[in-house]
Amino acid sequence: MLLPQIKLYALPGIPNIKAGDDLVAVIMDALHRVNLGLEDKDVLVITQKIVSKAEGCAVDLNTVTPSPQALEIAEAGDKDPRHIEVILQQSRGIIRHKGPILITETCHGWICANAGVDRSNLAEPGQEIVLPLPADPDASARRIRQQLKEITGAAIAVIISDTHGRPWREGTVNLALGVAGMLPLIDLRGKKDMFGYTLRVTMIARADELAAAAGLLTGQAAEALPVVLIRGAQYIPGEANATTIQRNPEKDLFR
Amino acid sequence: MLLPQIKLYALPGIPNIKAGDDLVAVIMDALHRVNLGLEDKDVLVITQKIVSKAEGCAVDLNTVTPSPQALEIAEAGDKDPRHIEVILQQSRGIIRHKGPILITETCHGWICANAGVDRSNLAEPGQEIVLPLPADPDASARRIRQQLKEITGAAIAVIISDTHGRPWREGTVNLALGVAGMLPLIDLRGKKDMFGYTLRVTMIARADELAAAAGLLTGQAAEALPVVLIRGAQYIPGEANATTIQRNPEKDLFR
Repeated sequence: MLLPQIKLYALPGIPNIKAGDDLVAVIMDALHRVNLGLEDKDVLVITQKIVSKAEGCAVDLNTVTPSPQALEIAEAGDKDPRHIEVILQQSRGIIRHKGPILITETCHGWICANAGVDRSNLAEPGQEIVLPLPADPDASARRIRQQLKEITGAAIAVIISDTHGRPWREGTVNLALGVAGMLPLIDLRGKKDMFGYTLRVTMIARADELAAAAGLLTGQAAEALPVVLIRGAQYIPGEANATTIQRNPEKDLFR
Repeated sequence: MLLPQIKLYALPGIPNIKAGDDLVAVIMDALHRVNLGLEDKDVLVITQKIVSKAEGCAVDLNTVTPSPQALEIAEAGDKDPRHIEVILQQSRGIIRHKGPILITETCHGWICANAGVDRSNLAEPGQEIVLPLPADPDASARRIRQQLKEITGAAIAVIISDTHGRPWREGTVNLALGVAGMLPLIDLRGKKDMFGYTLRVTMIARADELAAAAGLLTGQAAEALPVVLIRGAQYIPGEANATTIQRNPEKDLFR
């Protein structure tokens, strides 16, 4: 009997990424080290952190002058007003603000804590650096995918992932901010279940499932494993941005 | 160089489950068919649907008398008022209601659409059946884990999963409603990143990541694969209910 299966590999030995580093070369090196080749239909999940670092998105807080709004929010949450200023610059608007918690809609349209602007895991002691999300995670994914295709010939999917909290549930999971080579959503509208009923679940967030699965390996602490290869997962190849996951604000009940 | 990896297997050939079926026997049969044994630290993710079916949770809509509130909500959403009545009976309260969308807090404390009461994939044509969530998914997980341990000797983790929508994002992902043999959350508070900074992300929802990964194989349509074995994923063995994932309402900004 056929045994449906999926394998996930975390590429080891990826160095600390710096602005200007060639991520594709880094990934190819890592694949070679463990004798893994890319195959058609593979998925490569890459954390946004190394993409942002390579793209030079880091902001030196010593260059930031906080606005009055940033100063006010920072004081309410006992935060660095320069960090808040960067968050506000990366945001279209504030969704919720209470004490130290600041949930915004990013310039890309993602709703998450602190517009995804991270302070940990970034700087040498003495530096004061924060790291916004990549400017266009879908474009980053497309570029990486295209370069890997030119080198290896393999038609894969690339996902840029981030770690988000959720309403109602403690703890974080990884999800997709950028996608290339696959449809982020699998549309089951009109499909029937095994008794012929129309399915209740009409859309599967396949890119988010893949990102969450990769989160099992990426870790958060000393053992940084920012690139995960997933083999055997089913998805629909194609071109559509991760932003197609964003729910239309008029349809959303939690803004 | 060590290659960190995880494998997921969907157990094939699991029959349509009926009230009173012995799920543990069904799972052992499925493992035997594909020559898989259980090993210590494996994770078995089981969809709530087959647990609810086996536990006889199904409700015949012909036995349900809708309340005035159910009639009102049903009319606003063009729904079956008896289905709404079962949803309300399975809920502590309504979180959002707009047109056909009804988000409630279930008796267990989960916040999701329709209290998780599902109509698809359930009945032979002519029947009118809906399926609430298991009465106590943590207890279901513990019972299945304990019986599998007695048979195989393996100390595994068991997760009862469900498919949920999310605020702000289209599409569904699977997450954990019941857990046994593992801590659903990995607490990183006080841990340092690779530069010695205290981590921003303080809790990882490991049980939800495992459920989401299994969702890559469970599928939603004809090819029902309701049990997934995950091998190689790191988690903290222990006893804690999935309900520990629920955020304290006072800390939640989206109720």
